[in-house]
Amino acid sequence: MGMIRQTLKKRFGTPEKQLHLRVICSTVGPGKARLLGLIAEKNSITEAAREMRMSYKRAWQLVDNLNGSFQEPLVESITGGSHGGGSRLTKTGERVLELYRAIHEKSLAATAKELKKLRGLLKP
Amino acid sequence: MGMIRQTLKKRFGTPEKQLHLRVICSTVGPGKARLLGLIAEKNSITEAAREMRMSYKRAWQLVDNLNGSFQEPLVESITGGSHGGGSRLTKTGERVLELYRAIHEKSLAATAKELKKLRGLLKP
Repeated sequence: MGMIRQTLKKRFGTPEKQLHLRVICSTVGPGKARLLGLIAEKNSITEAAREMRMSYKRAWQLVDNLNGSFQEPLVESITGGSHGGGSRLTKTGERVLELYRAIHEKSLAATAKELKKLRGLLKP
Repeated sequence: MGMIRQTLKKRFGTPEKQLHLRVICSTVGPGKARLLGLIAEKNSITEAAREMRMSYKRAWQLVDNLNGSFQEPLVESITGGSHGGGSRLTKTGERVLELYRAIHEKSLAATAKELKKLRGLLKP
């Protein structure tokens, strides 16, 4: 039970009642943005999926969905190399992740006052 | 089929592929915010539910969930009067709706440039 709770906390960052802003831009939400960030970091869909406690199949579906939503793919395979392959973000993928993060940060900054007021009305 | 599509368009505002920003502040998202707005407008959960093509039961559950999340209820019953009852937003309910709308509008305004760039990368 403690284990599950810890897992949930790790996955979703904040407890349910705490106020936070989720930014969802039609095709990209916090889950897909985190996946892109982890692929950029680890150069591996398998590793990114493991970090998110998600099956490889599910992660691949999300990547496939993202690739199909944009004019150019966001994630591409690396063939060969010393690690024998993997995946990485394309230039477009890096750009999308950068824009998503900017949108999230700017939204938070622009609404900090209102979020604080709203938080003050919630049950503790 | 055309009927269903029209309904979906009416309910969700924009076609799936069009880029838009959804703001979700833990307990309040676009659906609950719209419900609060309609209750404010119509002074009736029944009418608000009908407008959203939602069952009364579902609308009532959402209201109950909102009321339970804040220190004071957001929606209260109107007893008596010429229309024999109904529901309305409390002062706290009006405040929450106002804050939610401000958060949504300020987020959009603060990120218009990035949203436009992200839109430019999506498939048409």
